[in-house]
Amino acid sequence: MRTLIIGIAGGSGSGKTTVVRRMAAALAPASVAQMDMDAYYRHHPGMTLDERRQLNWDHPDALDIELFVRHLDALARGEAVDKPVYDYATHLRRPEPERIGPADVVIVDGILLFVDAAVRARLDLKAFVDADADERFVRRLRRDVSERGRPMDEIIEQYLNTVKPMHLQFVEPTKRYADVIVPRGGDNIVAIDLLVSMVQQRLDGVA
Amino acid sequence: MRTLIIGIAGGSGSGKTTVVRRMAAALAPASVAQMDMDAYYRHHPGMTLDERRQLNWDHPDALDIELFVRHLDALARGEAVDKPVYDYATHLRRPEPERIGPADVVIVDGILLFVDAAVRARLDLKAFVDADADERFVRRLRRDVSERGRPMDEIIEQYLNTVKPMHLQFVEPTKRYADVIVPRGGDNIVAIDLLVSMVQQRLDGVA
Repeated sequence: MRTLIIGIAGGSGSGKTTVVRRMAAALAPASVAQMDMDAYYRHHPGMTLDERRQLNWDHPDALDIELFVRHLDALARGEAVDKPVYDYATHLRRPEPERIGPADVVIVDGILLFVDAAVRARLDLKAFVDADADERFVRRLRRDVSERGRPMDEIIEQYLNTVKPMHLQFVEPTKRYADVIVPRGGDNIVAIDLLVSMVQQRLDGVA
Repeated sequence: MRTLIIGIAGGSGSGKTTVVRRMAAALAPASVAQMDMDAYYRHHPGMTLDERRQLNWDHPDALDIELFVRHLDALARGEAVDKPVYDYATHLRRPEPERIGPADVVIVDGILLFVDAAVRARLDLKAFVDADADERFVRRLRRDVSERGRPMDEIIEQYLNTVKPMHLQFVEPTKRYADVIVPRGGDNIVAIDLLVSMVQQRLDGVA
């Protein structure tokens, strides 16, 4: 049977990761692979580190959509793929990729997942995880302070200068491509059950 | 087994009725009853017709929430109810009610369905049908011109003076109470399948 590819999009701090984790847990014993679109930043080994730092990594063009689509197609055929591993310090792919799949279900998440029509066409189910902008900022602030030890002023500046404008320009408009919108992010157990029900019915060949 | 109560909210012209009709068709052979919250306008037989016309029928207070909640409870217990039939010409309930249920599933729809906490607490699944404001207006315009023969100017005036402000004040804020938001209204087949899958799993006692 063809592997099901489930896409979870949503802004930074919306709760995408929680939705993916809870779906994967609920779908057991089916085999579930998880993949993040962030891993598919373009590889520019010919540039200097300074040149790479100058690039706009928040723009959809920073993503290697061609490779990402090839990998989605391979996963859909039930094959495994070698997902790139991106190094945020050097802005390069690491030499060792990560093996993903094969699996009954692949759950892919990404802030910009619904931007490209070729990507959208490869997703069997498209859910957009939504949360109020202030709550998304709070989640991002807490995570960046506690997990990454970044100073608050820097986080606020990056949020206002890059994250928020990018969200309004590229992320928010893709909500209309979703099959369903999940309000209240990862805490919305009923919506997660709903997504799981549908995947299970498809796995059972009922629908 | 307890009857499942499914709530479908959304603005005027969002496609709620299409979603309800398609869900009911897909849920066969389970028995499905449909009910609209609009039927529960308050009954004011003691007032004159002019007094009734003066009332603000677009405000949530115009609805008889107490009776509606009692009926939802009865339907959930597997009983039938005598739904009021509202006469828009006289602003009164007609003498003959309509028998609804009993059924395995009751699908209730209403613009203001998620406004009241007591109503929300009685819904096993809450879906908000969403559509762009311009498309909702176009649908309403076409329906009121072709089915009700109303002049365009009057439809536009009512929309701008009443329907739109009411939507922004009372309907739009209730989106956050939904378990899922269904974009693109009644044409969103994937979302309808998703809702149907979950109801079927609950009927089968799987979830």
